[in-house]
Amino acid sequence: MAFSQVGDKKQERQRPRQFGIVIGVLPTGRLNSITDVFGVKVGQVTLIKGDSVRTGVTAILPHGGNIFQEKVPGAVFVGNGFGKLAGSTQVEELGNIESPIVLTNTLNVPSAATGIIQYTLQQAGNDKVASVNALVGETNDGWLNNIRAQYVQIADVMQAIRTAGTEQVLEGNVGAGTGTVCFGFKGGIGTASRKLPASLGGYTVGVLVQTNFGGVLQVDGVPVGEELRKFSFSQEILQDVDGSCMMVVATDAPIDARNLKRLAKRAFLGLGRTGGIASNGSGDYVIAFSTAPGLRIPHESKSSLQNQQTLTNDAMSPLFMAAIEATEEAIINSLFMATDMQGFGGHTVQALPLEETLKIIRKYNRR
Amino acid sequence: MAFSQVGDKKQERQRPRQFGIVIGVLPTGRLNSITDVFGVKVGQVTLIKGDSVRTGVTAILPHGGNIFQEKVPGAVFVGNGFGKLAGSTQVEELGNIESPIVLTNTLNVPSAATGIIQYTLQQAGNDKVASVNALVGETNDGWLNNIRAQYVQIADVMQAIRTAGTEQVLEGNVGAGTGTVCFGFKGGIGTASRKLPASLGGYTVGVLVQTNFGGVLQVDGVPVGEELRKFSFSQEILQDVDGSCMMVVATDAPIDARNLKRLAKRAFLGLGRTGGIASNGSGDYVIAFSTAPGLRIPHESKSSLQNQQTLTNDAMSPLFMAAIEATEEAIINSLFMATDMQGFGGHTVQALPLEETLKIIRKYNRR
Amino acid sequence: MAFSQVGDKKQERQRPRQFGIVIGVLPTGRLNSITDVFGVKVGQVTLIKGDSVRTGVTAILPHGGNIFQEKVPGAVFVGNGFGKLAGSTQVEELGNIESPIVLTNTLNVPSAATGIIQYTLQQAGNDKVASVNALVGETNDGWLNNIRAQYVQIADVMQAIRTAGTEQVLEGNVGAGTGTVCFGFKGGIGTASRKLPASLGGYTVGVLVQTNFGGVLQVDGVPVGEELRKFSFSQEILQDVDGSCMMVVATDAPIDARNLKRLAKRAFLGLGRTGGIASNGSGDYVIAFSTAPGLRIPHESKSSLQNQQTLTNDAMSPLFMAAIEATEEAIINSLFMATDMQGFGGHTVQALPLEETLKIIRKYNRR
Amino acid sequence: MAFSQVGDKKQERQRPRQFGIVIGVLPTGRLNSITDVFGVKVGQVTLIKGDSVRTGVTAILPHGGNIFQEKVPGAVFVGNGFGKLAGSTQVEELGNIESPIVLTNTLNVPSAATGIIQYTLQQAGNDKVASVNALVGETNDGWLNNIRAQYVQIADVMQAIRTAGTEQVLEGNVGAGTGTVCFGFKGGIGTASRKLPASLGGYTVGVLVQTNFGGVLQVDGVPVGEELRKFSFSQEILQDVDGSCMMVVATDAPIDARNLKRLAKRAFLGLGRTGGIASNGSGDYVIAFSTAPGLRIPHESKSSLQNQQTLTNDAMSPLFMAAIEATEEAIINSLFMATDMQGFGGHTVQALPLEETLKIIRKYNRR
Repeated sequence: MAFSQVGDKKQERQRPRQFGIVIGVLPTGRLNSITDVFGVKVGQVTLIKGDSVRTGVTAILPHGGNIFQEKVPGAVFVGNGFGKLAGSTQVEELGNIESPIVLTNTLNVPSAATGIIQYTLQQAGNDKVASVNALVGETNDGWLNNIRAQYVQIADVMQAIRTAGTEQVLEGNVGAGTGTVCFGFKGGIGTASRKLPASLGGYTVGVLVQTNFGGVLQVDGVPVGEELRKFSFSQEILQDVDGSCMMVVATDAPIDARNLKRLAKRAFLGLGRTGGIASNGSGDYVIAFSTAPGLRIPHESKSSLQNQQTLTNDAMSPLFMAAIEATEEAIINSLFMATDMQGFGGHTVQALPLEETLKIIRKYNRR
Repeated sequence: MAFSQVGDKKQERQRPRQFGIVIGVLPTGRLNSITDVFGVKVGQVTLIKGDSVRTGVTAILPHGGNIFQEKVPGAVFVGNGFGKLAGSTQVEELGNIESPIVLTNTLNVPSAATGIIQYTLQQAGNDKVASVNALVGETNDGWLNNIRAQYVQIADVMQAIRTAGTEQVLEGNVGAGTGTVCFGFKGGIGTASRKLPASLGGYTVGVLVQTNFGGVLQVDGVPVGEELRKFSFSQEILQDVDGSCMMVVATDAPIDARNLKRLAKRAFLGLGRTGGIASNGSGDYVIAFSTAPGLRIPHESKSSLQNQQTLTNDAMSPLFMAAIEATEEAIINSLFMATDMQGFGGHTVQALPLEETLKIIRKYNRR
Repeated sequence: MAFSQVGDKKQERQRPRQFGIVIGVLPTGRLNSITDVFGVKVGQVTLIKGDSVRTGVTAILPHGGNIFQEKVPGAVFVGNGFGKLAGSTQVEELGNIESPIVLTNTLNVPSAATGIIQYTLQQAGNDKVASVNALVGETNDGWLNNIRAQYVQIADVMQAIRTAGTEQVLEGNVGAGTGTVCFGFKGGIGTASRKLPASLGGYTVGVLVQTNFGGVLQVDGVPVGEELRKFSFSQEILQDVDGSCMMVVATDAPIDARNLKRLAKRAFLGLGRTGGIASNGSGDYVIAFSTAPGLRIPHESKSSLQNQQTLTNDAMSPLFMAAIEATEEAIINSLFMATDMQGFGGHTVQALPLEETLKIIRKYNRR
Repeated sequence: MAFSQVGDKKQERQRPRQFGIVIGVLPTGRLNSITDVFGVKVGQVTLIKGDSVRTGVTAILPHGGNIFQEKVPGAVFVGNGFGKLAGSTQVEELGNIESPIVLTNTLNVPSAATGIIQYTLQQAGNDKVASVNALVGETNDGWLNNIRAQYVQIADVMQAIRTAGTEQVLEGNVGAGTGTVCFGFKGGIGTASRKLPASLGGYTVGVLVQTNFGGVLQVDGVPVGEELRKFSFSQEILQDVDGSCMMVVATDAPIDARNLKRLAKRAFLGLGRTGGIASNGSGDYVIAFSTAPGLRIPHESKSSLQNQQTLTNDAMSPLFMAAIEATEEAIINSLFMATDMQGFGGHTVQALPLEETLKIIRKYNRR
């Protein structure tokens, strides 16, 4: 039920794994979701009203406490920077994240930032706080949503943050993915995870994506975009191939900011594996953080020294592979879970046709 | 008159050049202001109310037309990234600036971004615009201003943009510099310019700064901070040495984004020359742009090719020197023009004591 | 014939296209080679002697003239920087390449740099040259080659540069790819190209790779690595999964340094599509340059202004797609063309077993 | 004696502190030298022969053990990248330094790299080593040295490394500074240090520079370049203003790679304070490392986890100030200690005239 609460074709949509499509070689976490990373919470507010409102908010919380007072190591990788990501330079400089991460539409980044700021200022223990680095990502849902109207309110952002939970994340036309388009089909929110075997550390890597980009869709290596005759620079894609993909990578592995940036970069490879080309107009950003309790950074500390136990460089490769696989699967999940959507200006975007897609995948013997 | 409109000690404050202090070896432009760069406009809104409102907005417009439709080449250099600069990644990726540059206080960055977005959406010719990269810088005026109250309204931002002009820029306790503190003294807005001799190209470089940082103040090489016994890590500076400096560099030299980033980096050297140390808590960013008409980037273009005439790498060095000198002088100007300010929580910040300062400078034979 | 001059299994090895495997949706250039980009020359010296010498040199020349006197716009993207790339910071700063690009083994980077310097100093017209930015990439062939002996001589580098030609490039165990290992199979040199249709500009993008890395091999989307039970973190790969991939992207499209860096970044996506994970120990670098005659940068110029006609940002996306596809195919080409190799310490590395691989690809209906 | 071993005017030259010129507000270390940082060793080989050989090698060793087996955290900041620095991308990626740092002339970077590689391969315990990231900086001494002849031999590099010691460092016309020119005067090697008071951590920061750049010389804030009528873009400087400054920053403070990069950036501010402008043709790089024993990174480790005690971001500001001051003083030291030099092509470069300079400084009441 949780998976199909949004949209009008509840029964038809399932994740690829439910159809026997297994992306990658590493095992998933329990829910195959970013919330498999212990403590990570996700909250979403979906705004669908009348003909023109097709947008929303997705908030990712590194932990359930006071993030400003207990920051987490974090990093940002810029795949293609045609996007309005707020907060990246401070993350890069200080190596930490001090706010919920909020995704929304392009023109509501300021609303989201204000929402984060007000949430932080109001949070117990923060009454002296005078500086908040709000971390906000976006993609442009202007095809289905009347984006110029800037529908997202501060209250929506607050609600997404406050209702965030640790359960399975809704995917498809939900939250910040409500009005997005991907590979010419309906995009949306997707998530996935990988859990390394104990011999490689046993760590979990979870990814959440907001998919709104173009290229030549490939599902688990199968040329679905070509078979459906719908891909960038083909005759069948008439609307702009541009778009964006926001990617958030969480892990419980104890990784410092430098290695988190390297991890973030691998999500970009995962995007490439789905056929994404990071076109000129795309805002492809990856935000990565570690939830390892020992790496929390107190806002104020009596000592000028911090003791940290972190992974060595040499231990990173399996995590890199996990981030690639989870990103690839999260993107495909978003397409499988999204449903047809009609919106602003009468525009309609079809969901990826599952029956045909499964037929193609079968043709290529991939299930 | 223009110089001293703000503050209550009109007569006393003058720029260092008016006292015979000549920073650098290159000649200034006509006004010794960023507005010496042809076409650049600056608008400021100063918010001083009751005991707690000490903040404002400073807007810099690369030209007086539709900036979104006619973008300018631009770049951002991050000196120290503890700051909430909005819009930097897109400038870096695309090499252009498509909005007014707005400076304000830390917690009002989203208001400023919304103001820029609404200004752009409403501007004639922009009715199809669905994506705006709002470029907003800030420093934290929370010592004198009740920053948590986020006083800056969207209307203030609009007003700063709409009232921008090409005349001399007000300095000191004005606009985004209303509540700032620099080297333990009252900081604010400062500006300066350099005009290269014809033999070096004849180009103008203008700089505007919002000064709110610490270190060991040096005025034209003279150790004023030491003499006044007020500098970072000395006994006399009890409040936090942290702070920030936003720097905006404009030039009419035809420079592409790569060389603009190099130019921006030199402003950071100018900050160093005043004794700034770019402390951990500082958000020291430089935004640079070129107003050269031939380098305007149309938002939409029929051709996929653009013809540009730009300066070679080899021609950059005099411009680098100009940016260093103008930044140094703009910072010192902000200190000379700022006046005593009492504000939030009863905090008072004294202006740089001019009489003493001039005495010290005379002692070191620098005028 | 040209393709199989190196190695002992001449007849068996062919490129995937010769087996009907078509990677991507864009057409190739005439030779499906980096030398399809007009003017680009490649020269290789292969060093195979006795039991321990399995290394070499591959030189890529942006044009056949004096590269120092007529530099080309260039850029470097660092995928994963565990590698000894020489020359990258100057390319980044100045936006140009002034020397042949030479690939070799890790410990012979200095020999290659000296070779480039001496070649440049000796070239007619360069008798005043006192500074050369030698651009050298490498991967570590130490499994098959006694790398500590640093076999590559300056003369080898000179020879590779001087014998460079514009014909089809030898692939597999040749030049800098003589001793490399990729996905647990014999790697080597590979090349490919794409030619955009006239409607998208008609430009050519050519890629040359030196493959020496790990991951989970995927050939045109088919999970060959999994089927052969040989992939990173599986039981079957006992030797280190680490390694590197040097990628060189050439184009005749008129692109400035900023957009070349963006183009370079897309080659990294192509690596991801083959199953590469950019492991911790990999030196995955991309060097990109434009051969557009109008963008040549004279070493000395009477004027401080240069006129350039370049592509707009908006025109980049098809080129991005071309770079992704050509990189993917160049990597696969290197594996198809490489042959079994025995070398240092009695180590043997098998080539990708073509018959089995083709069977797998057929199983997945990809030819 | 140690200070004046090189050059023919032994008695005349002294460091500015010996004349009562005190740069900055923080105390120096014991020797006011990079070797004040415990364990750091410096070795230099000076090559002066006949009319044309005016070059050398300066090696800085983070510790006296096996640096490859016990790497140190490290970072590189690029001030202006017109230079041939070798090894930077791997330092950036992995956050560590695994070799001696060697400075030499531009065209001998490969010799220096080979020297480092051979030194490392030969060192006891390194018989399995097959990859070495040689870190080499340079400036161009081609005005006084026949740089095209590439005089530096591998043996010279080895000797500089092997004879490195922890005593006071020779300054002026020595090692890699033998043939350099700075602000139109004879440049060279300079060094300085700062020791923080116990209340700020008690750490030492040491800097070593190779000065070969231009601008408008300022000695402790005094406009010496202007007074001597010798500065960039003045009539008096006829030779090229271009040039470079290599800066090496060592500290015993326990700082990770991210904060070391921030520290490195402050050295660039120190350069600005001397009047350096980082001209187009300059290769201004800063290499920073920490010698804190607890931060050593073993080349191979049984555990995938490392325990580290590092400074928090908040504790960095005093170290930033120390790096700025030490860099400024190291540059001035190089000028005070360098002596007149005649060399290649009959070129003569005068040392900074101390008597006049001191008179100027006295005029400005700075001693």
